[in-house]
Amino acid sequence: MKRRDFLIGAGAAGTAALLGGCTREQIEGKKDFNINRQRKVKLKIATSWPAHFPIMGTGVERFAEMVNGMSGGSLEIKIYPKNILVPALAVFDATSSGQIDGFHSGPYYWKGKNPAFALFSGAPLRMTANELSCWMNYGDGYELWRELYAKYNLYPFIGGNTGVQMGGWFRKPIESLEDLKGLKMRIPGLGGEVFAKLGVNPILLPAGEIYTALERGTIDATEWVGPALDIKMGFYKVAKYYYTGWHEPGSILELTFNKARFDRLSDEHKEIIRYASEAMTSQMYHEFMDKNAKALKELKSMDIEIRDFPPQIIEAAKKALLEVANEQSKKSEDFKRVFDSMESYYSLIRPWSDISETKFCSIR
Amino acid sequence: MKRRDFLIGAGAAGTAALLGGCTREQIEGKKDFNINRQRKVKLKIATSWPAHFPIMGTGVERFAEMVNGMSGGSLEIKIYPKNILVPALAVFDATSSGQIDGFHSGPYYWKGKNPAFALFSGAPLRMTANELSCWMNYGDGYELWRELYAKYNLYPFIGGNTGVQMGGWFRKPIESLEDLKGLKMRIPGLGGEVFAKLGVNPILLPAGEIYTALERGTIDATEWVGPALDIKMGFYKVAKYYYTGWHEPGSILELTFNKARFDRLSDEHKEIIRYASEAMTSQMYHEFMDKNAKALKELKSMDIEIRDFPPQIIEAAKKALLEVANEQSKKSEDFKRVFDSMESYYSLIRPWSDISETKFCSIR
Repeated sequence: MKRRDFLIGAGAAGTAALLGGCTREQIEGKKDFNINRQRKVKLKIATSWPAHFPIMGTGVERFAEMVNGMSGGSLEIKIYPKNILVPALAVFDATSSGQIDGFHSGPYYWKGKNPAFALFSGAPLRMTANELSCWMNYGDGYELWRELYAKYNLYPFIGGNTGVQMGGWFRKPIESLEDLKGLKMRIPGLGGEVFAKLGVNPILLPAGEIYTALERGTIDATEWVGPALDIKMGFYKVAKYYYTGWHEPGSILELTFNKARFDRLSDEHKEIIRYASEAMTSQMYHEFMDKNAKALKELKSMDIEIRDFPPQIIEAAKKALLEVANEQSKKSEDFKRVFDSMESYYSLIRPWSDISETKFCSIR
Repeated sequence: MKRRDFLIGAGAAGTAALLGGCTREQIEGKKDFNINRQRKVKLKIATSWPAHFPIMGTGVERFAEMVNGMSGGSLEIKIYPKNILVPALAVFDATSSGQIDGFHSGPYYWKGKNPAFALFSGAPLRMTANELSCWMNYGDGYELWRELYAKYNLYPFIGGNTGVQMGGWFRKPIESLEDLKGLKMRIPGLGGEVFAKLGVNPILLPAGEIYTALERGTIDATEWVGPALDIKMGFYKVAKYYYTGWHEPGSILELTFNKARFDRLSDEHKEIIRYASEAMTSQMYHEFMDKNAKALKELKSMDIEIRDFPPQIIEAAKKALLEVANEQSKKSEDFKRVFDSMESYYSLIRPWSDISETKFCSIR
């Protein structure tokens, strides 16, 4: 029996004996609510973002501060930007193996491990940030995600949401499906697969190379996130047409822990992580809204045009999404289970969104 | 000097002496992060809702559980339904005077104390739940709210949001402004004042009397909240026309503490309350979405019609809102400050909402 176990099992009398000089109040305090705090717990979390990356990176840094503050310093979370402990896209494996305790990233990066994982970022043309949070908490979302991640010894939480991402920056206007044929566009994830069905040639590029590729015409278009982060990339200088979005209507970021490590935490520390991640998610979503609104105002003063994809393209994209989903569902039972669950919850939640926020916000 | 102060000031050596029999690890633990937890803290919070009132009442009960869990039992919050400690609408004064430690209710109930307080619930035809959260955190919202509540020795947090509330249940269809003239409608708050400008006779009724009044035709219409709570009231049995909403596009609930009591809490307990209230807000908003969606599905199978107010009424309501706001602004400088701040933030945030979630959710 470890001394820690002994302490926990000792009960009031045993604890009192151990804490010889303590006052009665201190002893009761210890018995009641300090038993899990005998020892400071430290967790190392690596991200896929550069240091202090706006909103996503600073958001998870704030998560660490929240946890530190709420636990009175008994749970110390240290956030490591990409490539410090492990490379940006090695965080999943490093957490799975226990090399690090957790990571902050995006589930669609791991679709090579299981195509279903892409869906935990959300799906093109489907649920928004808040609808996805409902699916996670009141539909089967969290249950499925945690079941599938458990096979990798991982335990995920939503760790933020970007809200609706913009459709991207195009050097030429897109007025018909014809304009998409052969178009070279930097776009990842399921959105990229849907665009591919429409004739686009989806290209993956490291962040640092996108601007130059767009400037030189090596690519014709790129999506990134939304006004707040896009403006920092300077795309407005080299591509005039900024399209509204449907390919990532509410991308979930993840805060994922090594499951065995998480399971060993005290109940108190588990709860702190659980609710701090909820607070982080809402903070990040609102910070995206605020910063996007401010950047949009700035962008409007520049020589750009904000456009919607024509209905013909949206129609084709809807069909393409179902084709992609059918193909993936045939290859992967997990993909099918998750996609079906999302479709079912989407058909429940969207009629309410339609007559509440969408109806209200459409009042002109 | 109190013994507690002595303990805090004692430093490692002094603490070690006091805790004669403790191991080194325990002593360091105590020094580092248990210093604020020598004594269990208990807070009494009264609500304006009946016991276990769905979503709002159960939401704040879950808040108490979150706080209890995250603090390892060192901060115990007890929630009292209405009329147990104090009457439903006496919670503001009882918290202000320190009779109780806090309350969960809605800011528009206190407009008699200061007309500006109604605005902290949100305004008709203006910001949604998430836009209001942005205004609170990134605009001047929280600063103004806390400044004005400080005069009553109160410290408020957002404690949930209903999302867009439905426009209400009408016994007859509303097809023109003419149909509103002299209409007796149960409706509180700024929404009621706007409807009054359109010729409606706004009536306040206790919850328990609304159904019978509507059934007997003592009133012609009532608003309540949204499908989830409205269906429990049974209004669909006696009023066939269910209108979409604009008078409460995202009503903020408040979790407000006695300021002196809150200030005396340890930093750790303050942070726990802060982030638990953020988690509660997002949970309650999502629970409203989920339960509204389910109730809407059920309502659609009943003999009711879901309708939108005609554009003529919306136009008139927009003008009426500005009239109400101008009148209130002339009477109250506080109202003017808060309303102007909201208008300014609304004009920043709404263009982004327009091209992101509203645009995306309008794809058909």
